[in-house]
Amino acid sequence: MEKKIVNNYGSFDVIFEKSKGSTMWAADGKKYIDFIAGIGVNCLGHNYKPLVKAISRQARRQIHISNYYFSDVGLDFAENLLKVTGFERGYFGNSGAEANEAAIKLARKYGQLNGGDKRKTIVTLESSFHGRTLATLTATGQDRFHPDCFAPYPEGFKTIKANDFEAIKTAFDDTTAALFIECIQGEGGVNLINPEWAKAAADAARAAGAIVMADEVQTGVGRTGTYLASDWLGFKPEVVTLAKGIAGGVPMGACLFRGKAADVFVAGDHQSTFAGNPLACAAGLVVLETVSDPAFLDRVNHAGDYIRGAIASWNLPIVKDVRGKGLMIGTQIDSSIKPFDIEVRCLEKGLCTTTAGSDVVRFLPPLNISDKEIDEGLAIYKSVLEEFCK
Amino acid sequence: MEKKIVNNYGSFDVIFEKSKGSTMWAADGKKYIDFIAGIGVNCLGHNYKPLVKAISRQARRQIHISNYYFSDVGLDFAENLLKVTGFERGYFGNSGAEANEAAIKLARKYGQLNGGDKRKTIVTLESSFHGRTLATLTATGQDRFHPDCFAPYPEGFKTIKANDFEAIKTAFDDTTAALFIECIQGEGGVNLINPEWAKAAADAARAAGAIVMADEVQTGVGRTGTYLASDWLGFKPEVVTLAKGIAGGVPMGACLFRGKAADVFVAGDHQSTFAGNPLACAAGLVVLETVSDPAFLDRVNHAGDYIRGAIASWNLPIVKDVRGKGLMIGTQIDSSIKPFDIEVRCLEKGLCTTTAGSDVVRFLPPLNISDKEIDEGLAIYKSVLEEFCK
Repeated sequence: MEKKIVNNYGSFDVIFEKSKGSTMWAADGKKYIDFIAGIGVNCLGHNYKPLVKAISRQARRQIHISNYYFSDVGLDFAENLLKVTGFERGYFGNSGAEANEAAIKLARKYGQLNGGDKRKTIVTLESSFHGRTLATLTATGQDRFHPDCFAPYPEGFKTIKANDFEAIKTAFDDTTAALFIECIQGEGGVNLINPEWAKAAADAARAAGAIVMADEVQTGVGRTGTYLASDWLGFKPEVVTLAKGIAGGVPMGACLFRGKAADVFVAGDHQSTFAGNPLACAAGLVVLETVSDPAFLDRVNHAGDYIRGAIASWNLPIVKDVRGKGLMIGTQIDSSIKPFDIEVRCLEKGLCTTTAGSDVVRFLPPLNISDKEIDEGLAIYKSVLEEFCK
Repeated sequence: MEKKIVNNYGSFDVIFEKSKGSTMWAADGKKYIDFIAGIGVNCLGHNYKPLVKAISRQARRQIHISNYYFSDVGLDFAENLLKVTGFERGYFGNSGAEANEAAIKLARKYGQLNGGDKRKTIVTLESSFHGRTLATLTATGQDRFHPDCFAPYPEGFKTIKANDFEAIKTAFDDTTAALFIECIQGEGGVNLINPEWAKAAADAARAAGAIVMADEVQTGVGRTGTYLASDWLGFKPEVVTLAKGIAGGVPMGACLFRGKAADVFVAGDHQSTFAGNPLACAAGLVVLETVSDPAFLDRVNHAGDYIRGAIASWNLPIVKDVRGKGLMIGTQIDSSIKPFDIEVRCLEKGLCTTTAGSDVVRFLPPLNISDKEIDEGLAIYKSVLEEFCK
């Protein structure tokens, strides 16, 4: 079959047909253990019965209605999501990029209401990733995402170095609308943010009159062992963005706000036709109920610690660091080896992984991956890493 | 129930719970005829059995996988969509705004490859609407969508007056990357583009070295009686964007390209995590097969002509024009009456409609709306318009 979809990720020549739990099967019958969950999306794995049932039921009731009206499941999901996260209000979109576009617009408007036309700048972190629309690309703190071919990029963004206490001193002033922190830099290399630094940076931004926003597109929805990563980072953002696992695979994003950010958007400021459609909200309700259970989150933490502990225990010379939190896991590899080559070899042996930054192999498995699937996947991973040690 | 979703459309206080065909029921049991289909999204109406079945089946098989790989339904949908539309390649996104962001990035890169850093400008039409992200807002040819509070907006966009042959003469030069035509201006007032003008504008843009792109987010997928509105407009765009009804209510967008635009994007240029997920593609396949049937499209044309003919036949003094194509229908109302007031009164009497521009009531019913539901809806509409004539 000719593949006419834009080969936008440099896709592997594997065609998947079906899946169950954290296992997927290709068209040729080959079995794969899923350690990336569609880049952190399939948070309840594949063919998870309550999710399938909710989607099927809602497809019969109502797939979509206009935001001119409300849906019962949309209101339920909004109410419960705000309760679990501790935010006051929210806007739904269809992706992480759209959630971040909403946050950027909110920050700009907050700046204008609280400092006039000069308070417009959004400060993001070096090595961050915020999306692929023109504005979210610009917010992204990696030069390789700003090729000349898409210029001109929008003005009003600047970056600072994460975990650099010195940088905080001069980062914010009366031109700063918002500090936007990606809680663990996913694309950038599974780089953890120091909670002390995050709090100090947030304090400094607020002292300058800005709001603080958390990009939890990858870290949110239980990925790091709490529903939000900003909960353990402790900097209490006024705005948080979510996507990836929020609806278990149905496209959805959310931008939630509170405090000084709660009443910035008014009717007409921001919209999207599909946003908060009943199908996504019905799926989101199942994910929210499942993932916010403390016992479920405990298991996420234990499973993540187990995987990191196992990799570290192999004492392989090419492994330079094993880091992350919960089920967001990065293995930093010796610079002599391309992590992409490890990804390719893992795939050949039946394990789906991905890379991050320049030297990291990244795992984002389903949050409910079974112990058996973890061990199966780790056995493949160990054998591949050992090949590269030779 | 407290409504904590951002009241982003100034929503009506109606909570919908279920639906069938082109009829919806609110939580209080009240019945509504659906003349807007979630703003043109529910193109096969509600609870359409083959669509529900496809979504339920795919939810069991695989809701989402990463674009690192392919899915069988994703490849099927891409192949069939390209066949029906006559395009060569495509990129999938999650909304109309994302489809248009992809088109904007593609146009910019095309410009750089074919004219260097100075060929960057995207020309759109006055009164157009292209989306709510920062770049698509800027592309939108209506000043009310560029409030100071979201500035600075990205550079590199300009607008010309639609249907103005004089404007074409000076619109394009070696700084023009693309002409981007919204085929019928939906938000702008159901404003038809003159096919002769569209062809002349496209010729002039191409003569200046630019490509031509069609925004068919609202007009595509059979809405105007052909699968693409650009087919009857005849200007043969190199790029087309789709969303709304493409997957029958599951969030999805697409940006298709051919000719000079076919090979502009390479791996890594543009991506989205959810893009082209199997759930949306499985739904898209049902819509595509159903809507591309010539008999189905004939019915869309006849139903649209019937509705426009009925409204015109009432000879009501407040109706200034009845226009549109296929099932995209605008009633231009006397400027002494706010179309929003008509929308409110229709809703009270059990008919969902919307507005467009400053003086238009807009219908975008499901493409398979029954004759009976059309007549029920028209009876309500007539009674409301008659009230406003008093």
